[in-house]
Amino acid sequence: MTTSNKNSAVQASSLSADELRKLDAYWRACNYLAVGMIYLRDNPLLREPLQAEHIKVRLLGHWGASPGLAFMYVHMNRLINKYGLNAIFLAGPGHGAPGVLAPVYLEGTYSEVYPDKSEDEEGLKRFFKQFSFPGGIGSHCTPETPGSIHEGGELGYSISHAFGAAFDNPDLIVTVAVGDGEAETGPLATAWHSNKFLHPGHDGAVLPILHLNGYKINNPSLLSRISHEELDNLFHGYGWIPHFVEGDDPETMHQLMAETMERCILEIREIQMKARNGGAITRARWPMIVLRSPKGWTGPKEVGGHKVEGSWRAHQVPLSGMHENPAHLTLLEQWMRSYRPEELFDVNGRLIPELKAMAPQGTRRMSANPHANGGLLRRNLRMPDFRNYAQKLSKPAIERAMNTKPLGVMLRDVMFRNMDNFRVFGPDENSSNKLDAIYEVSKKLWLADYLPEDKDGGELSPDGRVLEMLSEHTLEGWYEGYVLTGRHGFFATYEAFVHVIDSMYNQHAKWLAICEHLPWRAPIASINMLITSTVWRQDHNGFTHQDPGFLDVVVNKNPEVTRIYLPPDVNCLLSTADHCLRSYNDINVIVCDKQMHLQYLDMDAAIKHCTKGLGIWEWASNDQGSEPDLVMVGCGDIPTLEALAATALLREYFPELKIRFINVVDLFRMVSAGEHPHGLSDRDFDSLFTINKPIIFNFHGYPWLIHRLAYRRTNHRNLHVRGYKERGNINTPLELAIENEIDRFKLAIDAIDRVPHLQVAGAHVKDKLRDMQIDCRNYAHEHGIDKPEMRNWVWPY
Amino acid sequence: MTTSNKNSAVQASSLSADELRKLDAYWRACNYLAVGMIYLRDNPLLREPLQAEHIKVRLLGHWGASPGLAFMYVHMNRLINKYGLNAIFLAGPGHGAPGVLAPVYLEGTYSEVYPDKSEDEEGLKRFFKQFSFPGGIGSHCTPETPGSIHEGGELGYSISHAFGAAFDNPDLIVTVAVGDGEAETGPLATAWHSNKFLHPGHDGAVLPILHLNGYKINNPSLLSRISHEELDNLFHGYGWIPHFVEGDDPETMHQLMAETMERCILEIREIQMKARNGGAITRARWPMIVLRSPKGWTGPKEVGGHKVEGSWRAHQVPLSGMHENPAHLTLLEQWMRSYRPEELFDVNGRLIPELKAMAPQGTRRMSANPHANGGLLRRNLRMPDFRNYAQKLSKPAIERAMNTKPLGVMLRDVMFRNMDNFRVFGPDENSSNKLDAIYEVSKKLWLADYLPEDKDGGELSPDGRVLEMLSEHTLEGWYEGYVLTGRHGFFATYEAFVHVIDSMYNQHAKWLAICEHLPWRAPIASINMLITSTVWRQDHNGFTHQDPGFLDVVVNKNPEVTRIYLPPDVNCLLSTADHCLRSYNDINVIVCDKQMHLQYLDMDAAIKHCTKGLGIWEWASNDQGSEPDLVMVGCGDIPTLEALAATALLREYFPELKIRFINVVDLFRMVSAGEHPHGLSDRDFDSLFTINKPIIFNFHGYPWLIHRLAYRRTNHRNLHVRGYKERGNINTPLELAIENEIDRFKLAIDAIDRVPHLQVAGAHVKDKLRDMQIDCRNYAHEHGIDKPEMRNWVWPY
Repeated sequence: MTTSNKNSAVQASSLSADELRKLDAYWRACNYLAVGMIYLRDNPLLREPLQAEHIKVRLLGHWGASPGLAFMYVHMNRLINKYGLNAIFLAGPGHGAPGVLAPVYLEGTYSEVYPDKSEDEEGLKRFFKQFSFPGGIGSHCTPETPGSIHEGGELGYSISHAFGAAFDNPDLIVTVAVGDGEAETGPLATAWHSNKFLHPGHDGAVLPILHLNGYKINNPSLLSRISHEELDNLFHGYGWIPHFVEGDDPETMHQLMAETMERCILEIREIQMKARNGGAITRARWPMIVLRSPKGWTGPKEVGGHKVEGSWRAHQVPLSGMHENPAHLTLLEQWMRSYRPEELFDVNGRLIPELKAMAPQGTRRMSANPHANGGLLRRNLRMPDFRNYAQKLSKPAIERAMNTKPLGVMLRDVMFRNMDNFRVFGPDENSSNKLDAIYEVSKKLWLADYLPEDKDGGELSPDGRVLEMLSEHTLEGWYEGYVLTGRHGFFATYEAFVHVIDSMYNQHAKWLAICEHLPWRAPIASINMLITSTVWRQDHNGFTHQDPGFLDVVVNKNPEVTRIYLPPDVNCLLSTADHCLRSYNDINVIVCDKQMHLQYLDMDAAIKHCTKGLGIWEWASNDQGSEPDLVMVGCGDIPTLEALAATALLREYFPELKIRFINVVDLFRMVSAGEHPHGLSDRDFDSLFTINKPIIFNFHGYPWLIHRLAYRRTNHRNLHVRGYKERGNINTPLELAIENEIDRFKLAIDAIDRVPHLQVAGAHVKDKLRDMQIDCRNYAHEHGIDKPEMRNWVWPY
Repeated sequence: MTTSNKNSAVQASSLSADELRKLDAYWRACNYLAVGMIYLRDNPLLREPLQAEHIKVRLLGHWGASPGLAFMYVHMNRLINKYGLNAIFLAGPGHGAPGVLAPVYLEGTYSEVYPDKSEDEEGLKRFFKQFSFPGGIGSHCTPETPGSIHEGGELGYSISHAFGAAFDNPDLIVTVAVGDGEAETGPLATAWHSNKFLHPGHDGAVLPILHLNGYKINNPSLLSRISHEELDNLFHGYGWIPHFVEGDDPETMHQLMAETMERCILEIREIQMKARNGGAITRARWPMIVLRSPKGWTGPKEVGGHKVEGSWRAHQVPLSGMHENPAHLTLLEQWMRSYRPEELFDVNGRLIPELKAMAPQGTRRMSANPHANGGLLRRNLRMPDFRNYAQKLSKPAIERAMNTKPLGVMLRDVMFRNMDNFRVFGPDENSSNKLDAIYEVSKKLWLADYLPEDKDGGELSPDGRVLEMLSEHTLEGWYEGYVLTGRHGFFATYEAFVHVIDSMYNQHAKWLAICEHLPWRAPIASINMLITSTVWRQDHNGFTHQDPGFLDVVVNKNPEVTRIYLPPDVNCLLSTADHCLRSYNDINVIVCDKQMHLQYLDMDAAIKHCTKGLGIWEWASNDQGSEPDLVMVGCGDIPTLEALAATALLREYFPELKIRFINVVDLFRMVSAGEHPHGLSDRDFDSLFTINKPIIFNFHGYPWLIHRLAYRRTNHRNLHVRGYKERGNINTPLELAIENEIDRFKLAIDAIDRVPHLQVAGAHVKDKLRDMQIDCRNYAHEHGIDKPEMRNWVWPY
């Protein structure tokens, strides 16, 4: 296939006159369709003169980028055929979807997936009408678009998605159109450095085409208004070899694009062959293309005395007001007829055979390539038995361990069993996050320069499968691209800075939510995010690193695809991670800190507990066989510790008090069944949380989130939630807990205030508890650490 | 000052031996202090042999970047003195705070601001102990740091902050250290393009120093491991002139840095002089410095056989275990004594006069420059009377207008009155967001290349004060830098994509929250964000552009600094914007769509309504003088429209039904007084919302947010909230409302279900309402627009 060495010495050749004619005709067909999608609800082949009633009432869609995208697509088609390439196409500026949908339809895939959009006049009419129309499809490269793994509704992630798709797909060439608007975003600007992470031996290739069409919505784009020399420097500086295709005359541009794109393909093959025939694995200077062509290319040159083609005025609809302005209707008809549809489509409305034959066949069509419907290629991970990594316990809440460390060992073994199919992503923090066991089987990928000291613990290798770069955006983009093309992964990141990718989370969740309704899209692996280095243990990073609010973003998205787990200890984390790695079509957010924490459950208990998602810890409760006076709840590692310690304090002072201790792992158990697939039935909830006893709920995140989830529950009025409330600095763990009132003392005081029969007897105890708080804080300020009896606290019963 | 032309022809000169000796001594003093901060709780001047008890129990802080930061700082000091520069210093890698705190202390500012950290042995001891210590200060360049306007806890925003500070400050030179870790982030990678927005005439200069110290937490940095040629290309490509300072021998490096930095200052002056002496205003190629020096420079070379200086092992504390390992204690003492503190500090522990004299004086000290405590320079905006832009109404809910358009006119006049002090920021969307009136007084700043067609509506000018770039990160960073240095601004952005800067919002809110407790920090102007192009009007952008969840991020931050407004119409928006532009130390989030919307209140009514923040709309209510049967609430433009239309439907079918109509503008009125400065007292809330009647609350955002805010209210159990719930595609406005159940029909059905006496009689009406829903949806799917009677609906009473 692509890696064969036939033709390796061949130079890119010019198009023959016949090739050129056909290529241009195919492109004209694409452009005709793109205009049709934006404007027409009827008369799709212009078999009769265009009338106002053929035009959609609202004109929605973006013409500007469409012809350029179609131009790239048809040129890539030529090379797929010529070299038998295995390629897919990502449109960074997804609002140019008409330029992608057009070739997808012309090569037949659209009709195969959506038979009512058949390759005839009637089907074409429906295809036109549905575009950006209520009840139809969106105006970007939405999940409904065959061949799309990148919607491009939010700009910035095309390059990182493309690299994710290319990893571990040695045959694949990922063509990616980058808009010059998109290129101004931060995520895109750093994603160019992804070339330092692409292994020429076992990864595929990414061929970026920076589309300098000059304009955004209303402004010139920056990269189109700097000198050629600067642009050339910039991409050489980023480590690429830029090739320029610039102009506006279609014939010249076809010739130039054909030669340039072919040269790029040959350069890619050259790099790959060297690496694959025993050459040294080093960072390659991959080719890329800068395509400078007019915005709205081939559209109206001028409208009403204003330049349109090659201007920001071509961004959306270059002509409007067709229902009121017959001149515009005429202009539109002239424009559409300029593509000579009568030469392109047969009497039934189907692309003529000569052009039909130009598209690649079967799964070589970029729109039908299984990599772009990655679930088709997904193989389940070969999983080790997570029980093997269990933390041994003598009894609950006595021993301490680093919660994430055994997970690192488990991930090592997952990696070992799935060396072509699994990647770990993290922003320079996998060691900091105690996942470093993974380096025993696979190092951090490093293809840039090496220094002698790297041998001493650098954990770098050109063959590494762990990807670390200080850009959450790039990592998340790679990861999404990797799972969208059928593989698996794991992403660990600092809790506060996962907010950097809030927006990427939102967009991926939306993508998955739409896919739930597309039976032809095979399920893909879930995104698994370990949120660690959490708010409660920022001993030296302080306030900026304290932000558990990602969960508040997560819960807003479609319940079908959102999952949140807060395992309190090693064994619960292992059980949770095992579940997540086996799941699909979800985004699993696991919150668990990396530091030393008390261990609560042996493996059997952890499995039972995590399977239920929440439950009573009998060993910490003393309400057996009776209704409790109080329900104490821990959710998250540190909050559970403090809630337990509060329970012990209460039992010490009030031995008669019946306390039920509950731990919550699966946060969505808090909502009612029917609102989320994991929602707990009201009956079960009431039986656990009682219908009228005080509940003290100690939560990892912002406390209001629990109210948002549980406000419909019978006993909500007695639900008292503690959590983080933005009070922090450099604090010891206990001091930070005290600042935010999630500490054992405050929880015990809360309980005394809420259990009716304690309120009088408890006054004296409350004073004592407050003194202890002050004492702990003073100790911390004096010594810089918590009191030993606090650091070493264990469950006393 | 900086702009004078004396010395303009002078070439950078070498340091004399004496200058070199003193500069190095000053730097040694900085490094000594940096180590002291990280390690010592006592014996600050090593007057006695170092003992374990002098060492902090927990060692928190980052040594790695500190010496490099101090190196830059002292070299800048030299040039401030030599050229009388007006300069400030931003440390991108804020965790190298010891390298900044040290010179801040040595130049006396720290003791002026915090007299207990005096310039003597006792003060120095306290200065050391408090660093990254419970009850002390954080380990980044937190707001507590005099001279800091950039904490650097979250990486990525140093360059954009620096440019924000430089805008409209012609005299100012903003020195900004950029970490090579930070340089991998997306926001930083695109912020280099900020040089295309810096006016050499009326803006100041930014001097970036890319600090290639080679490593992040555990990994090499990318930019330190590419070729010199690539690095040089990259920055030329970004439009800078890079100057390289590379090495590790202090003496050589001092000489090189002194010459290079001076050359940069001279180049800056040259550029500025040309522009200011009548030269053409074009984009300048500004100088920058690449400083390649070892990580943890001057620290231990090796520890336990592992390379430390010049390695990732120097990132945090290069030596630890001093309490258990006497050898490490000895190493630490040797290290600290290598700076020869006895030569640097006098008998009282004060820097010796010879070195003391090297720091700039008074407000020329970067730590005491008022630009870095921008509130000191803040002048109130000269405001036009917002009533002048009022929308005239015949009566409520009859006319329609574009809500943001008059705001654009008002912003134009604010701009006109404050042409040195006010900027408008937006990602290529100010026209799309209907704010384009502003271009009448100030165009979009454009210094990159021009084309002839730009004259036709391009609205570009080298003197423009409106900043548009397709990077929310860069815009927000500029804006923050601008207000932190005492100026004012306004930022408008698409609602869905404000999530791109969630994390920046979090960090700025945290900065402001800390400043609330620092009386010496003068109040700065609020950040004013208009969130527009909202979820309910994404007729052609669809699902990816529907996300009102930024509010869920906003509400988690400190109530002292967070404000959310949802003005439903033009006059409310004008009144709100006027209030926000006059406020300080807040982040004001205003949610208001840009499309045509029904107008409700004349200006007098709007002012009253916005002042209260929420209230009954008597004209839409029929419960006058009696307890209502139902409270209908609208919050946000479209939700208010639908709630009103539901009210009209209900009154049509049930003329006897008493409905109270409430609109909420100021979202924090929903929480109880005491939880937020805008919280409404429970008594007032109960009197508005009743204590037992059904409330139908139609909300702009995700519905759960209202429960999170109002769960403590008496009548919470009857609070029924509708809002966006992730159901959308290409929809007409009414269809989208129907999908998410915020439409008039569903609200009326909700009401019938909840008002006890309607439940039987209403069954028939509910059927009718459902039929109307279906009818509306069918119409939309057929015609692509809403039925005319729906589009043109007005209040019928």
